[in-house]
Amino acid sequence: MSMNTFGHLFRFTTWGESHGPALGATVDGCPPGVPLDALMLQNWLDKRRPGQNKNMTQRQEPDAVRILSGVFDGVTTGTPIQLMIENTDQRSKDYGDIAQTFRPGHADITYHQKYGLRDYRGGGRSSARETAARVAAGGVARAAIHALAPQMQIKGYMVQMGAKTIDRSRFDWDAIDQNDFWCPDAAVAPEWEDYLQAIRKDQNSVGAIIEVVARGVPAGIGAPIYAKLDTDLAAAMMSINAVKGVEIGEGMAAAALTGRDNADEIFMSNEGVPVYSSNHSGGILGGISTGQDIVVRFAVKPTSSILSPRQSIRIDGTPTEVVTKGRHDPCVGIRAVPVGEAMMACVILDHILLDRGQTGGARGKIG
Amino acid sequence: MSMNTFGHLFRFTTWGESHGPALGATVDGCPPGVPLDALMLQNWLDKRRPGQNKNMTQRQEPDAVRILSGVFDGVTTGTPIQLMIENTDQRSKDYGDIAQTFRPGHADITYHQKYGLRDYRGGGRSSARETAARVAAGGVARAAIHALAPQMQIKGYMVQMGAKTIDRSRFDWDAIDQNDFWCPDAAVAPEWEDYLQAIRKDQNSVGAIIEVVARGVPAGIGAPIYAKLDTDLAAAMMSINAVKGVEIGEGMAAAALTGRDNADEIFMSNEGVPVYSSNHSGGILGGISTGQDIVVRFAVKPTSSILSPRQSIRIDGTPTEVVTKGRHDPCVGIRAVPVGEAMMACVILDHILLDRGQTGGARGKIG
Amino acid sequence: MSMNTFGHLFRFTTWGESHGPALGATVDGCPPGVPLDALMLQNWLDKRRPGQNKNMTQRQEPDAVRILSGVFDGVTTGTPIQLMIENTDQRSKDYGDIAQTFRPGHADITYHQKYGLRDYRGGGRSSARETAARVAAGGVARAAIHALAPQMQIKGYMVQMGAKTIDRSRFDWDAIDQNDFWCPDAAVAPEWEDYLQAIRKDQNSVGAIIEVVARGVPAGIGAPIYAKLDTDLAAAMMSINAVKGVEIGEGMAAAALTGRDNADEIFMSNEGVPVYSSNHSGGILGGISTGQDIVVRFAVKPTSSILSPRQSIRIDGTPTEVVTKGRHDPCVGIRAVPVGEAMMACVILDHILLDRGQTGGARGKIG
Amino acid sequence: MSMNTFGHLFRFTTWGESHGPALGATVDGCPPGVPLDALMLQNWLDKRRPGQNKNMTQRQEPDAVRILSGVFDGVTTGTPIQLMIENTDQRSKDYGDIAQTFRPGHADITYHQKYGLRDYRGGGRSSARETAARVAAGGVARAAIHALAPQMQIKGYMVQMGAKTIDRSRFDWDAIDQNDFWCPDAAVAPEWEDYLQAIRKDQNSVGAIIEVVARGVPAGIGAPIYAKLDTDLAAAMMSINAVKGVEIGEGMAAAALTGRDNADEIFMSNEGVPVYSSNHSGGILGGISTGQDIVVRFAVKPTSSILSPRQSIRIDGTPTEVVTKGRHDPCVGIRAVPVGEAMMACVILDHILLDRGQTGGARGKIG
Repeated sequence: MSMNTFGHLFRFTTWGESHGPALGATVDGCPPGVPLDALMLQNWLDKRRPGQNKNMTQRQEPDAVRILSGVFDGVTTGTPIQLMIENTDQRSKDYGDIAQTFRPGHADITYHQKYGLRDYRGGGRSSARETAARVAAGGVARAAIHALAPQMQIKGYMVQMGAKTIDRSRFDWDAIDQNDFWCPDAAVAPEWEDYLQAIRKDQNSVGAIIEVVARGVPAGIGAPIYAKLDTDLAAAMMSINAVKGVEIGEGMAAAALTGRDNADEIFMSNEGVPVYSSNHSGGILGGISTGQDIVVRFAVKPTSSILSPRQSIRIDGTPTEVVTKGRHDPCVGIRAVPVGEAMMACVILDHILLDRGQTGGARGKIG
Repeated sequence: MSMNTFGHLFRFTTWGESHGPALGATVDGCPPGVPLDALMLQNWLDKRRPGQNKNMTQRQEPDAVRILSGVFDGVTTGTPIQLMIENTDQRSKDYGDIAQTFRPGHADITYHQKYGLRDYRGGGRSSARETAARVAAGGVARAAIHALAPQMQIKGYMVQMGAKTIDRSRFDWDAIDQNDFWCPDAAVAPEWEDYLQAIRKDQNSVGAIIEVVARGVPAGIGAPIYAKLDTDLAAAMMSINAVKGVEIGEGMAAAALTGRDNADEIFMSNEGVPVYSSNHSGGILGGISTGQDIVVRFAVKPTSSILSPRQSIRIDGTPTEVVTKGRHDPCVGIRAVPVGEAMMACVILDHILLDRGQTGGARGKIG
Repeated sequence: MSMNTFGHLFRFTTWGESHGPALGATVDGCPPGVPLDALMLQNWLDKRRPGQNKNMTQRQEPDAVRILSGVFDGVTTGTPIQLMIENTDQRSKDYGDIAQTFRPGHADITYHQKYGLRDYRGGGRSSARETAARVAAGGVARAAIHALAPQMQIKGYMVQMGAKTIDRSRFDWDAIDQNDFWCPDAAVAPEWEDYLQAIRKDQNSVGAIIEVVARGVPAGIGAPIYAKLDTDLAAAMMSINAVKGVEIGEGMAAAALTGRDNADEIFMSNEGVPVYSSNHSGGILGGISTGQDIVVRFAVKPTSSILSPRQSIRIDGTPTEVVTKGRHDPCVGIRAVPVGEAMMACVILDHILLDRGQTGGARGKIG
Repeated sequence: MSMNTFGHLFRFTTWGESHGPALGATVDGCPPGVPLDALMLQNWLDKRRPGQNKNMTQRQEPDAVRILSGVFDGVTTGTPIQLMIENTDQRSKDYGDIAQTFRPGHADITYHQKYGLRDYRGGGRSSARETAARVAAGGVARAAIHALAPQMQIKGYMVQMGAKTIDRSRFDWDAIDQNDFWCPDAAVAPEWEDYLQAIRKDQNSVGAIIEVVARGVPAGIGAPIYAKLDTDLAAAMMSINAVKGVEIGEGMAAAALTGRDNADEIFMSNEGVPVYSSNHSGGILGGISTGQDIVVRFAVKPTSSILSPRQSIRIDGTPTEVVTKGRHDPCVGIRAVPVGEAMMACVILDHILLDRGQTGGARGKIG
């Protein structure tokens, strides 16, 4: 897990810049014999694709993914899978005026400070376009999970957009795919739409909180101490552009709980497996899955690329006012939903493989 | 960064169980020529040591660290540094009754499910005693940082204990070391003491939020995309026992901000370096340090080992009520403060080394 | 260094099959600011390219490399560099008859046994075409070395082809590029040509020994114990298709030497640097460079794809006689020369970066 | 596999210097439930222990290994296993006179050049004592292999000492343990003894070639391309002190073979498994095991620490003549036999775990 590579046994390396010829992911360690084709990946990429509705950037990218290696006769071969997405709608001229300027809240200045130069076109490597490669890699992980553990489900959704939160009492799984926000509260979604359009008209942007759930993960996945399931999930989510916080289960709110309230009491179900009175732990104890839902949340900051003027400096040190033109998301958190799902899929698959590597997938008996 | 190892170039592997003969850390990749002796490490270990006051577990462990390798004539040689802490106060009998039982909220059940067996004495590998090894490793990192970047300071403190928070307007660096809670708000500390004693008497426990700041980190440390400084910090903090959430800068609160409010505007200082109007970013943009304070927060859940009875099951599946005797912290978050500092030190040093490996430590010029 | 990735700080992952749409290398960790374009890489690829003369396979592949990321305005940006080579001359029909058969001496059977399936077209992932990706990655390493240590030279050549060896007394650096065998003994080259044509006419093939020298590597590069310079070189060379042995300096012949004969005695040169009476060590002591020439040799087995019939089995277990048609090298060792050079370049660059990461590139003073 | 760590899933990090208080290995990733105690490890360490007969250094080290973690109730727990060997016979005074001097053929000078300092006592980290830690780690690997694949056997022996080779026609497995040289040719062993005593009396030393065989390794272990079984074996053996060459199967001699001669023809056995007419490949094709014996050879150079005077320099650059007193092996290759076995065990176990991680241990059917 170093530099541009994520994962232990199931690993991917993303490459590519926003306005280069292409970007993609090199996926290594996928089990052999997993049915896979480009269409299956496209399904997930289309969820993340820009330009789909008025709540997103209007950049039009088909994000068509090609599989260049590692698949033969419709199944994975166990060798590296190269996924390539060509960039087509590169209006580099939109960015020409920022070559000498650092946008506040953006990685322009730190890339320059570290490397002495940067690909300023569309943010180059720091662009949210990088996340398309993750979604493609996550599609491979989902295909492998489907082959190894078909009962498992991974689902992400927005629980907060700017100042607006969902009402958990109206939580509805089926609503998630039926609005532009992946919002599980159908009643609040129209309200969010008005709110976001107002934000956009105000030349502003807004943050969001995404929750991702993995259901059906067997107990015993994960490992102490530095490859804990929660450690890797925290790294996975924090590595996504613009993410500033990650929570497992109760998350930051765990600080205010007492030990008595926080204890997930254990019972034997009629089916003879351990069940819990609650899931404060988010499905992970000691870095290892309990068999309950694995629940992760992360906060995405508001897009720093806004049309409102902000004070900054040029490379030569002179002051300037920056207005970021170009086509940007008023709430980049919307498109972070499939990205969070993809990272969850990659982490879970990786730990399934790690676990069967070390233990053979055997499980301690209870009852 | 896999299994029990943390870090890229500066790496440590922790080993040992709560009630085994010893525990420790194998530290690799430390620069040569760094002045180091056991006393320097002991200084940090003493901060984390149990039994120091009534707000902690009464287990008495001297936590005396020995350096078994990698140091010669008072300086590091560049080869692996073995740090060993012998366990002395192992009252294994306290734990005998939980060999067949899973404590709610504890890793007992998941270790059993994964490995088919567990060292149940004091939680074995999942005990918070593992963090002593991190603090020792962090002491090595601090010594190397002191040699490479003497201006840098790393400081942790508690900003919330259970329902009680500090008043940021009373924040006082000098207060931190002057109370049992590493609390920067001197006025609130006595109140916390009463609160925690009431929790303890109620046979309960409580969570906490720790903030760790690294001051004086040069701009340009860190790297996209999966070894981002914030990614590694999130992994570092989430890997600590009982941590359920990690935040950088604004953290989860970034969701509610607008892009206009969240933008840290940039100016040139009179000294000719970029300065910022605010630090919503927590000192990191695009995974790379800005030169501002690096600010990380993490939430520690309440100790699951409490004297209040809780429902659970035995290995044979029969129901039981668990009361965890033994000597436990009513707020394990207190002792997490030096652990968070240690992890910050390790991450920062690792990234300083990674950066000079790739770039030679050169910096892009501004102004 | 796991699965399809090689290297520590300068790392590359190769991907692609012989008869898929493309193959390539994802290069991570390259220093920023290194001048690089596709033409510089093509230069090295052309050395390895098939179909150039009658001593090679007649498969015609332009092996045109494209840089898809990580380079901007003619220099590396420090982010991942994607190198893609499209396959153009894929006569898959040549291989149709071996889909159900395992060629003796080839990876057909072990891929099938491990993965349960294989891309049988041209050997798929096990084809020597994979080495084109290494040569491209090595070209990046050479460019970075040229920027960091311009005095360094890396040169490979054949010292043995089948039963024929060079005469070391006629060793001539300038001869290497002037014959089809990268042979440093100009007098023996014509003899080798006759020999190889006879081998080919006999529907046979032959092995080879390649020597690669790195000249001008500063003393102090490398590290004990498991990332020793010689360890990584051994891994690098043994990872090349068909390689069965690797030697550093005296290599296997060191066994027959006495300590007195093997000692490279040390003197101070007039320029005030240590010099040696001999180089039995191959420029490496304790895994760290001495400043002398680094000398590595590796043996390439004869191509297993030959026109002579050999006994084998089909997937269904029935016996068969295999004659491998297609266009194969009578001595694949010839094309291994630029591959060995590429691996040497990658290892040396990686260790230069690792060394300056840990030590800052400082050197212990002598004299 | 970086710096002082070896392996992917089954990993160990060695630490410690020749004359420090202790040395050892931190072993991570061992499967849980493997029966293990110190006595089992001691068995292997005693094979490598110095001072056992007149053909070895007379340094007396009990090399008593302690298990400090990761084992509970007689079995491994799946958490890190710390193995510690205390140094007892440290005659540091023997080495005082070399603090300012570089011994020819030794790592003294390169450690100094890299790190600016060195632990000169007994060679510090570069001492062959480090291999005791490998042997201990290898003992853990053997215990795990015994649990997972009890049919497997790993055996090393010397096939050449200095100018003396064995006669392969007299090869006898049972002879190996019955002479001081692990020599499989009983008839030649007495001759070797005379030869070595003459070398010693001449204040000289001599090299050796060791062969290590793993029998009963299932087909399908290993993986392309950079974690090939042969790649990892080459790295494993080359990482051992004083090793200058590594061969798999035919090794360097493969260069002189033709494709016709080198082809291991394939047949179906009466038991319905593939068998081969020969084993030129050394049991590995395309980096994956064939099910035949895995055969590795490595050459150990003669000990550079000899009593014969050799020209060298001091740290201040002045010339000097070095005579290395102290207690050194006339043929360090003898003690390299158990070290090679240990490395073989670690690599094989690691690849068994990696394989079942990726593929679940399923095997493609033949017949």
